[in-house]
Parts: sequence; structure tokens; C-alpha cells
Amino acid sequence: MTDTLVHAPVITPEALLDHWQGHRRLTRRLIEAFPEDKLFSYSVGGMRPFAHLAMEMIRMAGPGLNGIVSRKWEHFDDKKGAPTTKEGLLKLWDETTEEINTLWPQIEPGRFQEIDVAFGQWEGPIYWTLFYFIDNEIHHRGQGYVYLRTLGIEPPPFWDRN
Amino acid sequence: MTDTLVHAPVITPEALLDHWQGHRRLTRRLIEAFPEDKLFSYSVGGMRPFAHLAMEMIRMAGPGLNGIVSRKWEHFDDKKGAPTTKEGLLKLWDETTEEINTLWPQIEPGRFQEIDVAFGQWEGPIYWTLFYFIDNEIHHRGQGYVYLRTLGIEPPPFWDRN
Repeated sequence: MTDTLVHAPVITPEALLDHWQGHRRLTRRLIEAFPEDKLFSYSVGGMRPFAHLAMEMIRMAGPGLNGIVSRKWEHFDDKKGAPTTKEGLLKLWDETTEEINTLWPQIEPGRFQEIDVAFGQWEGPIYWTLFYFIDNEIHHRGQGYVYLRTLGIEPPPFWDRN
Repeated sequence: MTDTLVHAPVITPEALLDHWQGHRRLTRRLIEAFPEDKLFSYSVGGMRPFAHLAMEMIRMAGPGLNGIVSRKWEHFDDKKGAPTTKEGLLKLWDETTEEINTLWPQIEPGRFQEIDVAFGQWEGPIYWTLFYFIDNEIHHRGQGYVYLRTLGIEPPPFWDRN
């Protein structure tokens, strides 16, 4: 601990996991806040419904972390089958939560600074790839806030990550 | 450098600055993409116009980083005067860019892990506060993407941070 403090990290791997899972808890509340039919069909400005955006997050998170840990990347697949109910989507969300918690401690300490090609397509340091997963979730979830507002539904507060 | 690699940071202070400024370059392009009148008046779902959201980002970034460096916090002020033209908003944005670049190297190495009360109101480690500034920007900018789409304007690509 003293050693860690002397070397003064910006953020530890444990804290980044907690940061991401905090965001994911909030995103889960957004999924829950949508009426079931609106989750899969409603959109604003011709954009994708929120269930599609949530599936993109799921398809980045689990397979992405698998690639980071194993160094073997699947092709990013945004076409394969997806749940058609809110319950099914939340179940998949929760399975991904567990998968992330299981895989995260398997990231080797030096791995965050390694350059790799995520999903065989996107080259950058691993920390950059992880931040992309998180940032992309925040970005699309922000869009979900607008969808909910236009439906007259008060979204969960942005600052609450518990 | 070897020492840094052995201790395997998730992200270095320099890389986090670059990450933030990359996001800020993208947000600047969003401001530019809005027609001038829409920037200050247009909203979806009763939310704030994008100029207001951009002002919130500006008011967090410069004063927030000043508090982080100096340990003296102003009260968070979202009421004081704001530019009324796109040109004025972009000028303030660019001044904040310079302010961030000047202040960032003054953050003491151990500071990121210190607990402080940002703006005298929000308690947490400094890395958490900085991530909040960045995440809040991504969140609101995602909403700006919806505003632009509903105006029939193609937003700049999310992945391009140059």
C-alpha cells in the first residue's frame, strides 16, 4: 500500500473496476426505467432504441474483457441474437456483470499499457480500449436519458452509482 | 520509464490529460455543429439547450482543476454570466483548454488518491472528481448528439478525438 502510494497511481485497477461497475449499475436502472415496449421500439431522431444501445454495451464488455485477458479476440458481432424482453436483457446484463468481476482480476498488471488491436479492428493501449467501453456506455446512456425525458419519465440521477 | 512500467499504472497523468482533451476536442466540434440560434435555444424533452450543458462543463473544468491544484474551492456557480454567441462560447472553451493544460502538470503526484470535497460539496478521491468532470461531459454531449439528430444534422463521429 505504501509502495502504491509512493508511486501515486491516478487510479488503481480495483478502483477502475468499481468505477465501471458503478456506471453499469446506473445503466441497469435506465433499462429498468423504460416501459417494456418502448425499450425495444422507441427512438428519437432516428437513433437506435435503448435495448439496441444496451446490447452494444454488452457485446463490448464481456467479449472485450475476454480479449483483454486472453489476448484472443473475436470479431465484434453486433448482429447476433439478442433478448426480446426486458427481463431477458437484464439477465444478460447481470451475467455480464459477473463475467466482468471474474475476468478483471485476471488482467496482468502490465497489460493496461500494452498496445493491442481490440476485436482485431481497433488499435490502442488496453487502458484506452477499456475507457472506450466505459465512455461509449456513458455516451449512449446519455442518449437514453433524452429518450426517457421525451416519454415523460424522470431518469435516475446521473451522480448515483450505488 | 522502466520504473513506471514495473509499477504498471492503469493510466498515467499525462495520458489522462490527453484522454480528457480528446473528449473536449470532440465536444468543441459538437458546439460548432449547432446552428447558432439552436445552440442557445433548442432542446429535446424539456432539457437544457446545448450551450447551457457546455457552460456546465466549462464551469466544472477550469474552477475544478483550480481547486484540485490549489486545494481552495470556489462555490460551484452555474448562474453567473455566460456567452450569448457561438463565437464567445468557443472562445471560453479554448481558454479553458489552455487553463487545463497549464494547471494539469501542477497536480502533485499523490493528489489523485487524496480525498477532498470538490467545490465544498462533493466528497471523494481526486481521481473520482476528475472522472466525474469527464463523464459528465460525455453524458451531456451524448444528449447533444440526440439534439443534432432531431435537427437533421449528422453529429461528428464519437470515436474521433483528434
